[in-house]
Amino acid sequence: MRSLYLILKQLRTLVKLPTPAFSNPIASYSQASKPGPVWGSRKYKNRKGIALDVMDPEVEAHLAPLRQAVKEQGDLIRQLKADKAADIDIQRAVAELKHRKNALETKEFELSPKDDFDRGKLEDLLKQRFFYDQSFAIYGGVNGLYDFGPMGCAVKSNLLQFWRSFFILEEQMLEVDTAMLTPEAVLKASGHVDRFQDYMVKDLKNGECFRADHLIEAQLEKMLTDKKVSDDVKAEIRDLMPKIDGMSKEDMRVSLRKYDMKSPITGNDLTDPIEFNLMFATSIGPTGTLKGYLRPETAQGIFVNFKRLLEFNQGKLPFAGAQIGNSFRNEISPRSGLLRVREFTMAEIEHFCDPSNKDHPKFANVADVEVSLYSGCNQMDGKPPEKWKIGDAVKQKLINNETLGYFMGRIYQFMTKSGVDPKKFRFRQHLSNEMAHYACDCWDAECKTSYGWIECVGCADRSCYDLTQHTKSTGHSCQNLNIEEYQLCAILFLDCSNKVIDVVECQTQKGLIGKVFKKDAKVVTDYLSNLSPEEVDKIEKTLQEKGEFEITLNGTSFTITPDMVQVKRYQKKMHVEEYTPSVIEPSFGIGRIMYCIFEHNFLVREGDEQRTYLTLPAIIAPYKCSVLPLSNNKEFEKFVHQLSQGLLKLDISHRVDSSSGSIGRRYARTDQIAIPYGITVDFDTLKAPHTATLRERDSMKQIRAPVEELPELVRDLAQMRRTWQSVLNNYPLFEQQESTKGN
Amino acid sequence: MRSLYLILKQLRTLVKLPTPAFSNPIASYSQASKPGPVWGSRKYKNRKGIALDVMDPEVEAHLAPLRQAVKEQGDLIRQLKADKAADIDIQRAVAELKHRKNALETKEFELSPKDDFDRGKLEDLLKQRFFYDQSFAIYGGVNGLYDFGPMGCAVKSNLLQFWRSFFILEEQMLEVDTAMLTPEAVLKASGHVDRFQDYMVKDLKNGECFRADHLIEAQLEKMLTDKKVSDDVKAEIRDLMPKIDGMSKEDMRVSLRKYDMKSPITGNDLTDPIEFNLMFATSIGPTGTLKGYLRPETAQGIFVNFKRLLEFNQGKLPFAGAQIGNSFRNEISPRSGLLRVREFTMAEIEHFCDPSNKDHPKFANVADVEVSLYSGCNQMDGKPPEKWKIGDAVKQKLINNETLGYFMGRIYQFMTKSGVDPKKFRFRQHLSNEMAHYACDCWDAECKTSYGWIECVGCADRSCYDLTQHTKSTGHSCQNLNIEEYQLCAILFLDCSNKVIDVVECQTQKGLIGKVFKKDAKVVTDYLSNLSPEEVDKIEKTLQEKGEFEITLNGTSFTITPDMVQVKRYQKKMHVEEYTPSVIEPSFGIGRIMYCIFEHNFLVREGDEQRTYLTLPAIIAPYKCSVLPLSNNKEFEKFVHQLSQGLLKLDISHRVDSSSGSIGRRYARTDQIAIPYGITVDFDTLKAPHTATLRERDSMKQIRAPVEELPELVRDLAQMRRTWQSVLNNYPLFEQQESTKGN
Repeated sequence: MRSLYLILKQLRTLVKLPTPAFSNPIASYSQASKPGPVWGSRKYKNRKGIALDVMDPEVEAHLAPLRQAVKEQGDLIRQLKADKAADIDIQRAVAELKHRKNALETKEFELSPKDDFDRGKLEDLLKQRFFYDQSFAIYGGVNGLYDFGPMGCAVKSNLLQFWRSFFILEEQMLEVDTAMLTPEAVLKASGHVDRFQDYMVKDLKNGECFRADHLIEAQLEKMLTDKKVSDDVKAEIRDLMPKIDGMSKEDMRVSLRKYDMKSPITGNDLTDPIEFNLMFATSIGPTGTLKGYLRPETAQGIFVNFKRLLEFNQGKLPFAGAQIGNSFRNEISPRSGLLRVREFTMAEIEHFCDPSNKDHPKFANVADVEVSLYSGCNQMDGKPPEKWKIGDAVKQKLINNETLGYFMGRIYQFMTKSGVDPKKFRFRQHLSNEMAHYACDCWDAECKTSYGWIECVGCADRSCYDLTQHTKSTGHSCQNLNIEEYQLCAILFLDCSNKVIDVVECQTQKGLIGKVFKKDAKVVTDYLSNLSPEEVDKIEKTLQEKGEFEITLNGTSFTITPDMVQVKRYQKKMHVEEYTPSVIEPSFGIGRIMYCIFEHNFLVREGDEQRTYLTLPAIIAPYKCSVLPLSNNKEFEKFVHQLSQGLLKLDISHRVDSSSGSIGRRYARTDQIAIPYGITVDFDTLKAPHTATLRERDSMKQIRAPVEELPELVRDLAQMRRTWQSVLNNYPLFEQQESTKGN
Repeated sequence: MRSLYLILKQLRTLVKLPTPAFSNPIASYSQASKPGPVWGSRKYKNRKGIALDVMDPEVEAHLAPLRQAVKEQGDLIRQLKADKAADIDIQRAVAELKHRKNALETKEFELSPKDDFDRGKLEDLLKQRFFYDQSFAIYGGVNGLYDFGPMGCAVKSNLLQFWRSFFILEEQMLEVDTAMLTPEAVLKASGHVDRFQDYMVKDLKNGECFRADHLIEAQLEKMLTDKKVSDDVKAEIRDLMPKIDGMSKEDMRVSLRKYDMKSPITGNDLTDPIEFNLMFATSIGPTGTLKGYLRPETAQGIFVNFKRLLEFNQGKLPFAGAQIGNSFRNEISPRSGLLRVREFTMAEIEHFCDPSNKDHPKFANVADVEVSLYSGCNQMDGKPPEKWKIGDAVKQKLINNETLGYFMGRIYQFMTKSGVDPKKFRFRQHLSNEMAHYACDCWDAECKTSYGWIECVGCADRSCYDLTQHTKSTGHSCQNLNIEEYQLCAILFLDCSNKVIDVVECQTQKGLIGKVFKKDAKVVTDYLSNLSPEEVDKIEKTLQEKGEFEITLNGTSFTITPDMVQVKRYQKKMHVEEYTPSVIEPSFGIGRIMYCIFEHNFLVREGDEQRTYLTLPAIIAPYKCSVLPLSNNKEFEKFVHQLSQGLLKLDISHRVDSSSGSIGRRYARTDQIAIPYGITVDFDTLKAPHTATLRERDSMKQIRAPVEELPELVRDLAQMRRTWQSVLNNYPLFEQQESTKGN
């Protein structure tokens, strides 16, 4: 919402000042605002996290003193705030709180039982079966850019199609698809030009760049294991490490110099930290004078179209805009595969609503959904997340309002239906000190992975705080607006109540109309009273030129003469309600979600560690079904073709694999690419009545069914209208041992 | 395919030379190649075109002399070619042919009966109902950038989903989703860095830029209507105008100076023509040393992944890669709405196949499809396009091969199912002189619009001409490749037959194995003989360490002892077939197709010229159905909800419109956004058995049906499984006059 205000601000500035003079008014208002969606914020706030499912008493005994230390500090901060202590004292106390929280979470992560997930094996699978891989690898590759191969592309496309159906279709949201190339003025207004940055240091000799916080962290970690470093210094470093995330430019400079840090590659000296804007710059058009950037988020495309969307929605609130699309961030040092990249797909929703009424008509649908909430309070008290029914959490004001709660419930449902493990999913509330000042409540949907807890979806009530503030502080400035600016102002619900506008209307001579048109008089009068200014102008002109005007209502023609109407033009003082819409913003990082789904669904067959597979839900799986002839026997082809055509007709994506290799080996290959169902044509298929086997990926159980029934059976299973159990109950089991060996 | 070669070339160059020394070898090979997909080529080859459906004898009489003039020139060129005349003479004759063709087509366009299509009205509709509109309009807008609103976005998403299902799913293509940010080296290799450009002229005083050919054309047109210009000069200009498309830089400079052209805005002097590269440049990463561009086409993303895709396809040809995604071209002067923009969505297919066998297994499916072909021959003979069955056109070698013909048939089916008017659709063959030298046949799918005939899809057999040539000319250079380069070389099927590679294999002692494993001996021997080098290494190591190795085949365990196998390592001279895959490339411009669909489906209700509507096919329409309560009567709500939920459950996109306004006015609104079906809840709905009306957009006819039957009825209609006629036959007609007036 801040952006909406700034757009208007921008427009005002444009009227009064020549470009590029907009920087001042904006900078002064937006000090503490935070560009970018929550899930993509510049830091991993929680690199390590706790495993919710583990509450071992022995583990708890180890954690108790750490929990207590967090709680004491949390209480101290509450006290300082109650006492209205100086800001600097509160900030110092918060830094210490973060430190203690980090110590607690690191310990929790250490003590949580490790599952036998092997990231290397998952990465091998994803690479070998071309889910995704580094872009331009034959040119040596480019860091932070990934290409999705056929399997990754299908998963992504299925996930996005499911998102579109789950959110846009179900909630009747207004989807837009806006330009990625964005002129500088827009991103200046949104704050990205000035403040969307990270700090980097450069190798003084060869110019190589490093992200300052990453470099400091790595070097401090190295020092902790260095025998030559004294225990005193190590203690100091342990104290410093949790503070890295919150370091200012000066803090970083001090640490770099104090520990005499060098380039980890060359050992050369480094520059002081330098601000580096994370947007990709380019130039639009041939003159070179229109500077532009690749958008760093899709949200701005919704904000700049707010007026059109509101009009499309016939001027009514609430409504939600949504956008799926790519965004770009020029990361200094991309890492962790799909988790931190330079080009990525987002899906964002901006739900605009009345700030005084954030109830949601469909809230009852999610009130009983149970989710794990890691509240700000629990974080300050050193306590673990807790299970809550969304309804209760809203009732108790833990979640600020129904609309925010509704979206959290929907996010949970979407994520778990897409394959995220509910036990590795939580909502973490932003602490008041990490929340942008314009937000009134913000929860990150986090997934637990081998990289720690990863923010995948941000869900923020961005409120209308700053917009309201700025409107107040600019007071009656809309007196100077021209009519178009005024209309924009009004449509943004800003305070323009003292504006005088021109009105054109058609006043009717009811007596005469009644006499002429009798029983139809009301219809005619109603029609004439509700004309647009343009229609009034047209009627007036026609009456002047032709002396009459014809209208057709309900199939009947009426001739209007000049004595029936009188066109009035006058000025009117407008009463616009002083109200600025709030915006609730759920913002999804698609690549991150995909990666978490892959981790949560990666398994190894018991007894055969080479045989890895992915248990993706059918809705997300790249193909829904495989069709395999048992061998290259010519007679099988007809049935393979019949099955393939049957599936095609039902729009069921499938893959025919007639390659050589034992059936077991081919099943193993389809398991690797997560195909949930497999039909095999074998020698029994050739006999009438023609049947084939159907195998389910996770249980590896098989049944036999008539060939003509199989396509619909697979469709019902893939669309989750039927369970595998019901299929097992209704068809004869087919028993055969699977082997992946042999040819 | 040229790209594939260049990648390899690049790779070779990378090995031998430091960057950035690749420019020379590439430039020397790719003089005449043409970057970019056909549909997006730099010129409108055919601005004006002929209306196929009009063969009025009177019109033909006017055209006959022009047709004859074209034919004479075409014959002259054929003769020159047969006589092996000098290139310069042929080029001159071709320029004259183009001139005559243009004169013919301009006349044809003038004489073709104008339908009453009103582009202004369509544009109003598209803007008002937010199908799409200029991006960043509140900032003054940026030329060549468009935002799709909810309706445009839904049409686009439906069109892409249909494309995906029609091509990717049906043909089992391998879809990829690759990075838009592209490092310079890749686009250097593809030829885009050096030759993807237009000519511009700059205002010498204020730096404003104009596309040179557009400026020259506009100024010459102006001179033709200027009374002060002599008839001699006008004749000269008429002669010059058709030649603008083919002008060289020097030709343009001469014209600019000869006619003393100035800036049309300021009247200032202009520079000479300057080459302007159409790619958006940026810098990847923080150092500023890795130059990159936004991709100008999606095809390169498929080519650079060729090796991975071939592996994914288990090394087998033919297969097709496909990609849907955005591309970017920094047009000097974007114009004609969606037809020439700076950021646009493409859908491209690269079908790789054996050059000696371009038959297609599914060709029979399209052999009887009848399309309008505007062959090169007919263009040279001044004849109009002709109707052909695809099968006959391939048989008679008008279309080069089955695969090309198959894709043309599929393109026709896709376009017409999406709403393109078959009468305004043709395939125009590239003349040999306008075809890139590497292509052996190329047809543009063109749609007739108010802007003339517009290329929407290019369909080219890019052959393997240059790749083969270059492979020959580089001869035995792969002798110097290392093993990885060799593998890439082999996988690209280049000539590396003299390469010696290292082989590792497991030789079995058949006698001993037979003695030990008896009837299972063959299975074990086969298994051991087909191991990968890595598996052989692993067995060897295990045998050395443990003295035995266990394998499980078909559920049985076998213990292999060292005396059963012998690991052999030796060098082998590889025999790689000398064959370079051909590529057939259908390349779709999604924005252009959308625009043509809008034009072809825009209508005005008879008798009410305010009432415009769009007859989009249900598969493309933004929503499939509307649900309208007759008034705001509370009792209607329950049924509206029931119907909406029923549609949602069947995944049918729909829009509830409970706004005030007469039902007729609301129908008119839903017609504008092309909603094909509308359900109205009225007072009869409240009575048991509960029924509602169903209205079809184009005929405006209505039937009554039970509420519980309606969702499935709409689904069947929307998915085109049932016709409206069959619905009319089975349900009672509901008769009521529609009025858009009143409240």
